[in-house]
Amino acid sequence: MPLPLTLLNLLHETFPQGAVSTAEVERRAYAHDNSRHAQIPDAVVFPTTHDQVEALVRACREHRVPLTARGGGTSSTGASVPMAGGVVACFTRMNRILRIAPDDRLAVVEPGVTNEALQQALAPHGFFWAPDPGSAPWCAVGGNLACNASGPRAVKYGSTRDNVLGLAAVAGTGESFRAGTHTTKDSTGYDLTRLLIGSEGTLALITETTLKLTPRPAAVRSLRASYTDAGAAARAVARIMAQPVTPSALEFMDALALKLARDHQPEAGVPEADALLMIEVDGEPETLDVAAHAVARAARGDGLTDLVVATDAAQTAALWAARKALSLAQRAATQHKVNEDVVVPVSRLPELVNGVRRLAEKHAVPIVSFGHAGNGNLHVNFLPRDVDEIERAYAALPELFALVIALEGTLSGEHGIGVVKREFMPLALPAATLDLMRGIKAAFDPDGILNPGKLLP
Amino acid sequence: MPLPLTLLNLLHETFPQGAVSTAEVERRAYAHDNSRHAQIPDAVVFPTTHDQVEALVRACREHRVPLTARGGGTSSTGASVPMAGGVVACFTRMNRILRIAPDDRLAVVEPGVTNEALQQALAPHGFFWAPDPGSAPWCAVGGNLACNASGPRAVKYGSTRDNVLGLAAVAGTGESFRAGTHTTKDSTGYDLTRLLIGSEGTLALITETTLKLTPRPAAVRSLRASYTDAGAAARAVARIMAQPVTPSALEFMDALALKLARDHQPEAGVPEADALLMIEVDGEPETLDVAAHAVARAARGDGLTDLVVATDAAQTAALWAARKALSLAQRAATQHKVNEDVVVPVSRLPELVNGVRRLAEKHAVPIVSFGHAGNGNLHVNFLPRDVDEIERAYAALPELFALVIALEGTLSGEHGIGVVKREFMPLALPAATLDLMRGIKAAFDPDGILNPGKLLP
Repeated sequence: MPLPLTLLNLLHETFPQGAVSTAEVERRAYAHDNSRHAQIPDAVVFPTTHDQVEALVRACREHRVPLTARGGGTSSTGASVPMAGGVVACFTRMNRILRIAPDDRLAVVEPGVTNEALQQALAPHGFFWAPDPGSAPWCAVGGNLACNASGPRAVKYGSTRDNVLGLAAVAGTGESFRAGTHTTKDSTGYDLTRLLIGSEGTLALITETTLKLTPRPAAVRSLRASYTDAGAAARAVARIMAQPVTPSALEFMDALALKLARDHQPEAGVPEADALLMIEVDGEPETLDVAAHAVARAARGDGLTDLVVATDAAQTAALWAARKALSLAQRAATQHKVNEDVVVPVSRLPELVNGVRRLAEKHAVPIVSFGHAGNGNLHVNFLPRDVDEIERAYAALPELFALVIALEGTLSGEHGIGVVKREFMPLALPAATLDLMRGIKAAFDPDGILNPGKLLP
Repeated sequence: MPLPLTLLNLLHETFPQGAVSTAEVERRAYAHDNSRHAQIPDAVVFPTTHDQVEALVRACREHRVPLTARGGGTSSTGASVPMAGGVVACFTRMNRILRIAPDDRLAVVEPGVTNEALQQALAPHGFFWAPDPGSAPWCAVGGNLACNASGPRAVKYGSTRDNVLGLAAVAGTGESFRAGTHTTKDSTGYDLTRLLIGSEGTLALITETTLKLTPRPAAVRSLRASYTDAGAAARAVARIMAQPVTPSALEFMDALALKLARDHQPEAGVPEADALLMIEVDGEPETLDVAAHAVARAARGDGLTDLVVATDAAQTAALWAARKALSLAQRAATQHKVNEDVVVPVSRLPELVNGVRRLAEKHAVPIVSFGHAGNGNLHVNFLPRDVDEIERAYAALPELFALVIALEGTLSGEHGIGVVKREFMPLALPAATLDLMRGIKAAFDPDGILNPGKLLP
């Protein structure tokens, strides 16, 4: 349905030439994200100021037109696909770093700055922002907030939700508001900041955020532990997490992940193990021997076949080559990857890994498991190669989620819900919890204009 | 107003003998918390099961009777005083530790367990729960959640909000729900867990919570740095927080705090400085030299007059004696202490300390400043000794809060809002933010029965 003329006129008044487009060729570019979903919006705008965003939300509300916020478009859940059409607000041009304050361990940024550009700006100050998704070069900080993104470092430094102090936003009502503080402690009313983190643009559009910074460790050291089977590796993860030295990364690769990496990049030196842990510790240089010794001690146990500690940059790069090769290897294996990022308590990892193997056998579809084992957060990726396998992969999905819930886990650790996991929300959350979420949605966005069709079933 | 008879009957049906009381002598005991406010409830009940709590909320809602949750009653803001009468639900008997899972770094507890009892149960497993309020022996974990409590360790390990994974609760609607997970990562819908933390019992009654545990460091070391003036100490705090070794405590005492401690306990060896920093680092024993060296280097600078590093337990106790003496010294100085826990960004601490000194002079009332400097969270305590000074202290309060807001800080770091800071909320938060909070309140508690008169103005 075409946009009402008064709304179109207002968009052209609010946004300068080149910052609003209704041409189909441009709208098509904003129909997609990194999921399999697509829907062409009726208009795309590129805000650069808070006031533009406020005017935009008010106009969309007045005309009951759907409004979907978009950062780098790297979501794998369809979170930034405008499923109901309407307007896409693309924040990539609202990308200034407004302030870096090392004494206060904070940075104030606009939502469109990429994660990587932010990290580069922070590095000279001796700081980093903890969330480190694989899409860092392209994903926007605003999108990191929207999905509660993270990556390998979360095991020590937390997810986005643990690393944001405050924000400015425009609710679906059209009202501008601020939440949170510029301080690391705050007991002043309800926590609207963390409520917005992970809300996938369904409650408000974030126009500025104050991020909690972490000092860069002076040094890191990597270890690689190989095991006879996934269960042995998973039990080692639990032992590592039960001792005081928290690794700065604790990544797992299963047998198929290792085979794919090995076949795709034979020169990468991927070991012939059935399960691998990549472990990193960080800190002051003088403390790394102690830290590496502590995690190595915990990594040892039944099923360990090899333990290598990198002693220089070249060895470190060699150890991580297997993990790096895996992404390309998966892409080479199939164009139809269905990627999930389920989470279970660390102690339940052996059951998850075994359950996934049984699913792969039962449904006769390759499944690779790897990822952030220290958080119990595994990427369980189905790699179907033809139409039949694609069908069987989707048939297996509900069983995967049921398994995860039975293990006291949940649907998503860092990708979010979007379109693709929305129908499974009632598996993870009781009806009363979903009802309260709908009540919050109604308070922030009474007319349901913000990113309709996402997150809440 | 007396309770409706049908409600009274239901209370007696729901709670066994001894777990419900309408006798005035018992009701009087639950009129107070650690603030200056008091109001006698019409009944007190002592739930021990989730089902009792659900029945209680439903009955109170049906009869539109106020319901106030209470833990140890240690709030200094009036948060657990039943300002509108009605029923107090005292959770002290619902105090079981249901599960301790070291591999998963979590514990599941009922809300009435005291912070200290929990820590004692965790210690043999090599873990602790990060929030460490001064009231730990008496305060309940449920109250810690309600107020987003913390203490000195928050500078490294975070507040309650950073250390809770999930919870079960009964909303003001009477609906039971679960929020969060048993995992350290979760991007599955809106974050109701953190929304409830700091909500002071105005949205729901928490009946169970899953806590994130932290491994106990193997060793700690304390340092004490004395400065010529508060500004020099505050600048040292900023330097310490801008380098990579995060202390596990970074506490400040101003000149009056030191004088009070010295006068009250001359044998405690409190130094003759005008400002003091108490610094603690923790970690593996072999790493403490490096950590202590790093913070000591940052602590040095203009105005440092003395820097002492404790090398054994006796010296550590001696260093902390000044801080310990202060609580008793304040109580000896006056019965009319007005205690605040304002927060500013660390870089603004010098302005806060100077501003507080000007307030003390202008209003001619003693004010002592001390506390969690690493978070910018100072306890600014007015110590009026007579009626005139009490009046002047309360006259100075709005100026203190205005100063804090001007410095980009906020009203409360760890005590919460309750009754005593409620009228100042519009200073800290824009009207639109408060409106959204009211919308959330309406979604959780449409009839406004839960802890009326608190938090939201």
